Amino acid sequence: MAADVIFDFERQRRIGLSEAVFCSGKTTLQISAILALARGRNSPLLLTRLTPDAAAALSDADRAGLDYDQHSHTAILGPWQPPAGAAQVAVVTAGTSDVRVAREAIRTLAFHDQAATAITDVGVAGLWRILAREDELRRHPVVIVIAGMEGALFSVVTGMVGGLVIAVPTSTGYGVAEGGRTALHSALASCAPGLVTVNIDNGYGAACAAIRALGLHTALKSS
Amino acid sequence: MAADVIFDFERQRRIGLSEAVFCSGKTTLQISAILALARGRNSPLLLTRLTPDAAAALSDADRAGLDYDQHSHTAILGPWQPPAGAAQVAVVTAGTSDVRVAREAIRTLAFHDQAATAITDVGVAGLWRILAREDELRRHPVVIVIAGMEGALFSVVTGMVGGLVIAVPTSTGYGVAEGGRTALHSALASCAPGLVTVNIDNGYGAACAAIRALGLHTALKSS
Amino acid sequence: MAADVIFDFERQRRIGLSEAVFCSGKTTLQISAILALARGRNSPLLLTRLTPDAAAALSDADRAGLDYDQHSHTAILGPWQPPAGAAQVAVVTAGTSDVRVAREAIRTLAFHDQAATAITDVGVAGLWRILAREDELRRHPVVIVIAGMEGALFSVVTGMVGGLVIAVPTSTGYGVAEGGRTALHSALASCAPGLVTVNIDNGYGAACAAIRALGLHTALKSS
Amino acid sequence: MAADVIFDFERQRRIGLSEAVFCSGKTTLQISAILALARGRNSPLLLTRLTPDAAAALSDADRAGLDYDQHSHTAILGPWQPPAGAAQVAVVTAGTSDVRVAREAIRTLAFHDQAATAITDVGVAGLWRILAREDELRRHPVVIVIAGMEGALFSVVTGMVGGLVIAVPTSTGYGVAEGGRTALHSALASCAPGLVTVNIDNGYGAACAAIRALGLHTALKSS
Amino acid sequence: MAADVIFDFERQRRIGLSEAVFCSGKTTLQISAILALARGRNSPLLLTRLTPDAAAALSDADRAGLDYDQHSHTAILGPWQPPAGAAQVAVVTAGTSDVRVAREAIRTLAFHDQAATAITDVGVAGLWRILAREDELRRHPVVIVIAGMEGALFSVVTGMVGGLVIAVPTSTGYGVAEGGRTALHSALASCAPGLVTVNIDNGYGAACAAIRALGLHTALKSS
Amino acid sequence: MAADVIFDFERQRRIGLSEAVFCSGKTTLQISAILALARGRNSPLLLTRLTPDAAAALSDADRAGLDYDQHSHTAILGPWQPPAGAAQVAVVTAGTSDVRVAREAIRTLAFHDQAATAITDVGVAGLWRILAREDELRRHPVVIVIAGMEGALFSVVTGMVGGLVIAVPTSTGYGVAEGGRTALHSALASCAPGLVTVNIDNGYGAACAAIRALGLHTALKSS
Amino acid sequence: MAADVIFDFERQRRIGLSEAVFCSGKTTLQISAILALARGRNSPLLLTRLTPDAAAALSDADRAGLDYDQHSHTAILGPWQPPAGAAQVAVVTAGTSDVRVAREAIRTLAFHDQAATAITDVGVAGLWRILAREDELRRHPVVIVIAGMEGALFSVVTGMVGGLVIAVPTSTGYGVAEGGRTALHSALASCAPGLVTVNIDNGYGAACAAIRALGLHTALKSS
Amino acid sequence: MAADVIFDFERQRRIGLSEAVFCSGKTTLQISAILALARGRNSPLLLTRLTPDAAAALSDADRAGLDYDQHSHTAILGPWQPPAGAAQVAVVTAGTSDVRVAREAIRTLAFHDQAATAITDVGVAGLWRILAREDELRRHPVVIVIAGMEGALFSVVTGMVGGLVIAVPTSTGYGVAEGGRTALHSALASCAPGLVTVNIDNGYGAACAAIRALGLHTALKSS
Repeated sequence: MAADVIFDFERQRRIGLSEAVFCSGKTTLQISAILALARGRNSPLLLTRLTPDAAAALSDADRAGLDYDQHSHTAILGPWQPPAGAAQVAVVTAGTSDVRVAREAIRTLAFHDQAATAITDVGVAGLWRILAREDELRRHPVVIVIAGMEGALFSVVTGMVGGLVIAVPTSTGYGVAEGGRTALHSALASCAPGLVTVNIDNGYGAACAAIRALGLHTALKSS
Repeated sequence: MAADVIFDFERQRRIGLSEAVFCSGKTTLQISAILALARGRNSPLLLTRLTPDAAAALSDADRAGLDYDQHSHTAILGPWQPPAGAAQVAVVTAGTSDVRVAREAIRTLAFHDQAATAITDVGVAGLWRILAREDELRRHPVVIVIAGMEGALFSVVTGMVGGLVIAVPTSTGYGVAEGGRTALHSALASCAPGLVTVNIDNGYGAACAAIRALGLHTALKSS
Repeated sequence: MAADVIFDFERQRRIGLSEAVFCSGKTTLQISAILALARGRNSPLLLTRLTPDAAAALSDADRAGLDYDQHSHTAILGPWQPPAGAAQVAVVTAGTSDVRVAREAIRTLAFHDQAATAITDVGVAGLWRILAREDELRRHPVVIVIAGMEGALFSVVTGMVGGLVIAVPTSTGYGVAEGGRTALHSALASCAPGLVTVNIDNGYGAACAAIRALGLHTALKSS
Repeated sequence: MAADVIFDFERQRRIGLSEAVFCSGKTTLQISAILALARGRNSPLLLTRLTPDAAAALSDADRAGLDYDQHSHTAILGPWQPPAGAAQVAVVTAGTSDVRVAREAIRTLAFHDQAATAITDVGVAGLWRILAREDELRRHPVVIVIAGMEGALFSVVTGMVGGLVIAVPTSTGYGVAEGGRTALHSALASCAPGLVTVNIDNGYGAACAAIRALGLHTALKSS
Repeated sequence: MAADVIFDFERQRRIGLSEAVFCSGKTTLQISAILALARGRNSPLLLTRLTPDAAAALSDADRAGLDYDQHSHTAILGPWQPPAGAAQVAVVTAGTSDVRVAREAIRTLAFHDQAATAITDVGVAGLWRILAREDELRRHPVVIVIAGMEGALFSVVTGMVGGLVIAVPTSTGYGVAEGGRTALHSALASCAPGLVTVNIDNGYGAACAAIRALGLHTALKSS
Repeated sequence: MAADVIFDFERQRRIGLSEAVFCSGKTTLQISAILALARGRNSPLLLTRLTPDAAAALSDADRAGLDYDQHSHTAILGPWQPPAGAAQVAVVTAGTSDVRVAREAIRTLAFHDQAATAITDVGVAGLWRILAREDELRRHPVVIVIAGMEGALFSVVTGMVGGLVIAVPTSTGYGVAEGGRTALHSALASCAPGLVTVNIDNGYGAACAAIRALGLHTALKSS
Repeated sequence: MAADVIFDFERQRRIGLSEAVFCSGKTTLQISAILALARGRNSPLLLTRLTPDAAAALSDADRAGLDYDQHSHTAILGPWQPPAGAAQVAVVTAGTSDVRVAREAIRTLAFHDQAATAITDVGVAGLWRILAREDELRRHPVVIVIAGMEGALFSVVTGMVGGLVIAVPTSTGYGVAEGGRTALHSALASCAPGLVTVNIDNGYGAACAAIRALGLHTALKSS
Repeated sequence: MAADVIFDFERQRRIGLSEAVFCSGKTTLQISAILALARGRNSPLLLTRLTPDAAAALSDADRAGLDYDQHSHTAILGPWQPPAGAAQVAVVTAGTSDVRVAREAIRTLAFHDQAATAITDVGVAGLWRILAREDELRRHPVVIVIAGMEGALFSVVTGMVGGLVIAVPTSTGYGVAEGGRTALHSALASCAPGLVTVNIDNGYGAACAAIRALGLHTALKSS
């Protein structure tokens, strides 16, 4: 059965977002086969959920030209450079443990040539921290908020700005917060109007939504 | 089997809080029997979860001298008067729908001769509302916070004050917030240190905890 | 305690979206008080979750000038007219039972002067129905998809278009689908990148998110 | 107590499906005892959920003549050969991570002398992939669909074909999809009529159902 | 917006099963519009989940020619007659409360011209009842088993016969069995190989699966 | 703080069952301290949930005189001998994976001088196996039934005998059966009257209930 | 299809407990048919979950000779008299709302000619109440404990007596206690050894278990 | 991105409780950076959830002056000494496995200069143990009760004393008690008035609540 891999290179042309390789649950053989396909087409590629162990299991040939970030478990294949324009997206984190997810979002944005502003450690237990950043936040048309535990930051930020706010609940927490359901439900039940959310720990998905909202599809349609 | 009612008049002597009559699930006959027992001992009595229908089903004799509040579904039997001292407890609500629970707490406090300050409609979707009350809040040694939906107000208030904060999650909400689990979990998972919580919609319990914390038991022990 | 109502008229100035009145759990007295406040300020007002029974309980004076829609349980106070511009938002429903939520979204958009295109009864059990609308869908920068049951339509539409897709899971269904959790989880777990979601049956929230994404806040910031 | 093993060799005669050995939770000693019983009766045997570690723990004698497949964690004892007839069953997978379950199904079918057509990597995020296989799918009287995440593929395929469709939800996914409940509920709540499902990751059970549906029992009854 | 009804008459041609009208959540106006569409096309129609109240709300014109069964909440429009052939499907119920679901299945089969054998009140608490019917059961290629509570009957029947067994868990029960999750999970976790299941109370779906399995689609494809 | 251990040697005198040492979550130091206390009082002792690793971590002195069984993770301290009388309790298991729990029950019974009859591998997928043991089962006043997966065996056995039947659901299973909730709920929702249950995997508790039911307390009270 | 009723009169002969009629979910026609069958055989009959409305819907002929108790929703058909012997079973309730379930248990015991001692309103919030009954409790070989809310009474009683203790969790409670899951889990997780439990609100089942434990089956077998 | 650490030294001044470092989910680099910040400000620091492995991964320089307790996974940085005053807080544990959480609470209290009385191994299965400590308990204005399994001790203690009682449910248990939800729900649903609770295993939070209740904030406000 070999690697049984079919890759959807068609997606970029259809919806303006390339398929990313979600590495969790894939064997080394399968990841390797996808990398070979991408290299054969000279296509840049984003890999998510690639653990340090899984990355180390790849051959030297597979790893060549891979920009791997062990904190966010992401890798980027192919020539790319940091985005040049002004940041349209702010990425806000409640606590230190949420930074790994923030980096997944920021690297996904960068892969699609979008810069981002990182605002870290502004959880509501010390409300003065987020209040000090209000003006800065309001200058970004899209704000991604990343929080675990009780996720109170989602509502607080959504009540502060007029742009699109995307919540990313994280699995940070214990007891009733373990796994991230409490933060997820806080995002969904928010009293602040217009907050939207993605799945737990899905920094990649939030970045894709930001890209959709920022109207990159416009260019696609007009081409 | 008649009314099968035994009432714990002993409790007041033992722990300084009288047993309240939780009327949900009790028949008219049973509530009537308890009222008769209390009148026979000349004992004031607090009834909770007495719906308007259940109150209307009581006989005129049973209702005589009952101070019934239909918004909070509470009734107080026996001569009592509003508490005279300064309020030691602030009762804060996020939205209009939470007021019924706030009134259960305030009336339970009053029954035990404790005044309270009501602060209403200060949910975090418009953060400026709660920020405007910060100094006032900090003057109360105990703050009861009542909120449904995502319950973000619990963490915000706990991060503002140094006194004891007691959360009462409410069943206000729909979808994932239906029944109050989301607000409850937010209280339990709060990133603000020292927040405690009671069961969903349990304004009575929060008031009892406030009374315990305010040291009324001291008098009891020294008597 | 009267009606205990404080209304956040401040919100419009701060974030560009006015507070809507969520009527579920509010008494007739409270709704009436809010209407009076709005009339006093000459402020248009959107009411959601106003059941036919609750609407009928309002006085004639309260109902004067209220545009009530019994299918979506929404009411609009004050002079308003249908939006004039081209529709930037498509509102797609899987089945007939989802139409009530779609109308809540469409009326919220209209209240903020945004036209919408309604595309109904295109569930995936007969895939040819949604395929026939693909080009039309792709012309809208924002697509709101409303579905209950298993919510497969969310992923299918997100795979078809490059714009922002907002899922509204509905409580339509029975057995494991009862209450809408299955559709909600399908939206969150979607294999299509960049899909975002709001709470179950929250057509109002999806419309607010669309308004945020469409950049109305830009005008706000530049004013 | 030794190995405490009793094996139900009677089952084949009664219902036309032999008992398979579910190895998870069994000790090496117990598996070894069952293999000895089967060899003693000259009976071919299918083992499922035999991890590579558990397989390696068996003695050389136990492993002799075992055809082990480490991707699907299945083993077959005894002389057997690939099925010769035309494939009556299509086995469809949404993503690369679902292939391990597909192989369990295909090997169970092969053990009962049924050929299968494998169709891989046709998840709905790129709908054009499954649409391209529609005619091929419709030629099989039974279609097994294997998907994790939100399981939208179940409804899409069931809406395309007139034969029996059996869903196998997989535990592929994270956040709300972790463990496979979301995919399972999608299968159960499907809007497409006549879809049936088995337990999460149960490729073996889906294959048994296909065998039952294909009428092999007919021969059994007529013999 | 009128009735907003689009009906998928295309489905019969595509997959050999006509769309049924799931009436729960539909307004009288919407049901009436669908009936009119069907009459206009001279198309027979099956309606499910039509409660006696909903049926009574229809006009006399709408009800003309409707064969309504109040026990199963189903209605059939158009000329039809009981199926003539021998029963290929056995429909087995554990208790008296499950009969309403059994009738939904039997009427769905009849609508598609399939006769069924009803075997009632054979729950496992008195095992001798189902044992007495074993030979009869084994003569049917498809067996639909309908049970609530703990659903033990699913495994017992599947262990007795070689044909396809389809479980329909019902919402009959209280405590942990309330709503039908316990019976559903019993079907999914069954130790008997090859059992498949549909959603709770979904007699209609089980019948559709039986029709798919019986190969009616063959005729369709060869026509 | 040393080992912080207080042991309830009082229990035997009060209720006729000695406290057992539940080792899960205890440190080696704590287990060692309890063993020393027991030896000091010359008191026999039963230890449960003592994993092979935890047993190996004990010192030679601690292990002296410990009868350890690695299959059931139980240990018995002090002179004891197999029970001499006729078995009053039958211990029935559905599958091979349930034997570890059966042994915990049987050893707990033996520690209290009660013999037991083990009946293994009689799951309902092959119903003829349990039917063959019906007469034997009916001769025991107490029957403990141990099953995972869907737990259908609980109801089948309870429908066969007139004695007390105690269910022990086990964590054997995967998908919806993972962790044992499905088997537990089957026991609780059983249609067979008079079935009782204990917690998942709690063979020790079932044995204690059997001892209570067999009236050993009578002797205690009369002494 | 008429009433579709088959009644298991065989059960009494087989296991010594007659089948009771669980009326919830049955139509008036079905209950009536069962009563007629019982009268035809001159067989006494116990009916449970017969609501006042359902009882009132029966014809005068059906109600003749029925001893109906509206508090416990039970009815007994046929000549019977209160049990004459000393009570072997104590039935303990935590609060007034649990009495309805206690009466179901006591009447089921009485139907099988077993007397019971009722001990009411002894919840642990006032521990002195249950402590005062300790000696009385210890004189009964079987104790049925009925409690809702947090169910702490189960463990307290089990720690006091040496006989068999059967927990009946009730659906009394609100918030996290709503429906009875919290009390049920308390019974299952009890730290007191040998406690067994039945389903929520299942007073009938607890009584049947008590009858099984009291060895009535012995007489049956020796006859 | 370096360590991305911002620490809220402001908190002490604002609410009288310093921020503790919750180490779970933080990298060695991040913990090290926080320690350096604290040393730079000469600020004492409390660290929680620091596993032995995480502690061992710190450099010698980082560990210098750290008072680490491996049983409770806490560490204290900076000169401190055991509290000198009389204990105002009693810390009660049900079983030996709960001691780790008790120590987290006691060390948090000590860090804030509050002495505590430890009362261990007084679970309700042997009720005489807690009854013997009643007078001692009543002398403390605050009682923290720590219990896993069914958590019956929470209600028993709350019924005994008049002071503030704070429940800490623990994750001690298996089956339905696994993870601590059963104990948590017992605390929330308690029939004893005024009991409050914190998240599962949150000894730190309970101690913070005790400090808030004891009025340390008073000094803060008057300064």
